[in-house]
Amino acid sequence: MSTSVMVIGAGPAGLQAASTLSHLGFDVTVVEQQQYLGGAVARHQYQVLMPDFSSGPELLRHLIERVNEDPHIKIYTGTSVEDVSESRDIFSITLSGAHAETIQSHAVVLATGFDHFNPARDGKYGYGIFPDVITGAELEEMFAKGPIRRPSNGEVPQSVAFIYCVGSRDRQVGNTYCSRVCCAVSAKQSIELREQLPKARISMFYMDVRTYGLWEDSLYWRSQEEAGVVYVKGRIAEVTEQHGRPVLKGEDTLVRGPFEWPFDLIVLAAGMEPSRGTHDMAKKFQVSLESHGFIKQAHTIHNASLTDHPGVFVAGAASGPKAIEDSIAEGDVASLAVFDYLKAKVTL
Amino acid sequence: MSTSVMVIGAGPAGLQAASTLSHLGFDVTVVEQQQYLGGAVARHQYQVLMPDFSSGPELLRHLIERVNEDPHIKIYTGTSVEDVSESRDIFSITLSGAHAETIQSHAVVLATGFDHFNPARDGKYGYGIFPDVITGAELEEMFAKGPIRRPSNGEVPQSVAFIYCVGSRDRQVGNTYCSRVCCAVSAKQSIELREQLPKARISMFYMDVRTYGLWEDSLYWRSQEEAGVVYVKGRIAEVTEQHGRPVLKGEDTLVRGPFEWPFDLIVLAAGMEPSRGTHDMAKKFQVSLESHGFIKQAHTIHNASLTDHPGVFVAGAASGPKAIEDSIAEGDVASLAVFDYLKAKVTL
Repeated sequence: MSTSVMVIGAGPAGLQAASTLSHLGFDVTVVEQQQYLGGAVARHQYQVLMPDFSSGPELLRHLIERVNEDPHIKIYTGTSVEDVSESRDIFSITLSGAHAETIQSHAVVLATGFDHFNPARDGKYGYGIFPDVITGAELEEMFAKGPIRRPSNGEVPQSVAFIYCVGSRDRQVGNTYCSRVCCAVSAKQSIELREQLPKARISMFYMDVRTYGLWEDSLYWRSQEEAGVVYVKGRIAEVTEQHGRPVLKGEDTLVRGPFEWPFDLIVLAAGMEPSRGTHDMAKKFQVSLESHGFIKQAHTIHNASLTDHPGVFVAGAASGPKAIEDSIAEGDVASLAVFDYLKAKVTL
Repeated sequence: MSTSVMVIGAGPAGLQAASTLSHLGFDVTVVEQQQYLGGAVARHQYQVLMPDFSSGPELLRHLIERVNEDPHIKIYTGTSVEDVSESRDIFSITLSGAHAETIQSHAVVLATGFDHFNPARDGKYGYGIFPDVITGAELEEMFAKGPIRRPSNGEVPQSVAFIYCVGSRDRQVGNTYCSRVCCAVSAKQSIELREQLPKARISMFYMDVRTYGLWEDSLYWRSQEEAGVVYVKGRIAEVTEQHGRPVLKGEDTLVRGPFEWPFDLIVLAAGMEPSRGTHDMAKKFQVSLESHGFIKQAHTIHNASLTDHPGVFVAGAASGPKAIEDSIAEGDVASLAVFDYLKAKVTL
């Protein structure tokens, strides 16, 4: 039996891990429950990525071509992990769906990603009630499909509000953590919007703007200075509707006053939650979760990919909110951790 | 000639890269201009690391033991790169200092790190003038050496202010970027301070609190709720002195009022700048810098370690502000990039 590793999840982290594991000499099986590869990047058709405005489809092409052309990588889409048993450090993994078989693996990389918070869970945003209230992911899909129009009437929006931290940093919905990338993604989206809507008023309602590191200039300052986007530190009370337009009610915490402003379009920067797949796989592979339900890192600083179960590794947003660049880096980190782990056990 | 790689800089990124490159089969030479290994973690004797309050000395021991015990890694401390030439994809690197020799390398990893911004460059903070105004790095050294006392008179401080974004997000000093980790490091320090100073007033003066991702609970909320630290969104006008105590003048941007508060101790969260070594090595190895003087990443998202010079890779804060965990991850990413690069050129 050759030395084989299973990667579960085919988003950026999983695809990177698969390719790197193959470079390191392993036979790799990638199991993905969806019919497509690329995770959230593919699901929402991200056209332009932050922070560098590079092409989403090109990134996917790069990641997918490498695994497709690699004879040491098998790709099982439309396939789920049904059952796992372990004996003498070898995992027997029973799959269902398109590839119903049992596979022996020496190690496993969980790259099961995230789901977006569903804003319908918090009534105050009016999501699912008012058609002109959409999520950031839906805005990405609009960018992919054509010009930006109001869902309610097909008109060009003259005013757009972004609400930050939807489902993040919010005890009431149960998510106390920050989703890390939504500030930067929203800033990127506001710059893209400006190209299509040269005259629209674009306003960002935030708690803290977390365009950390070098994102500060390329996203936050650029959105303000080149795209004329206005940032308002504010608390959102609720979204209502008047005369067919959503109305944002809240308090501007800098000028200390309540506001009640109508917008043609409201974009909710919905945060990240552990995906159902992350929960399921954590249970099947017996790895612990941290307090928010992400996979717990055994050594946060030493190595991002170690779980508390030897032979089971994690990469990408399965262990917490990540940017795509972080997820790809962790695909490498996890592959090397597998390499070190198996070098001690198996003659490669 | 065996396949050899030079790692320049022996902070967390460089030490991780050295160890991983050796695991991948290379002979590694680590060149470090200082006499010690461990970079900023060693220089400032970080005792407790964010986000998980793990031990700094233990992290260093882990990173350093691995390279010291590895027969494929040579460590050249007290050594600098004097001159570089390149012929047929082989770098001839002339060293000076403790190991004055010329080494042939097939690839190079620049892990030359950062320097802290020197707050004496901005007169408004009173740093270098008022003894009770110190930097976050100096606070780390105080934690390492003994109890926290006011430098001016040796008394226990009853009130401590942290000023965020010192030398970051500041056009006047020329650093428009965010230094990424200072918010979180300051929150960690405030929690540590509370243990020593149960009754002190501890106040954080911030622009935005950027404890992103899962740092939110473990640092930001914990500092407020467990350590009773107060966060004030404010702009700092200047630090003066009255009756032997530094006085912080500024404007609270939330309650819209000026303040003038004396503190026993003021901690400046000084940001990161490209180190002199980063500048020097970028020039010697002919890699481009981005607009702030960090080493420019050729593909931000695809691979964090690629520069625009084939065979020269980057890891850690040399390419921009990073947390230690990011720098260690990038040590792995750079090692794999070297592996892929050399696999195409050399029979390993």
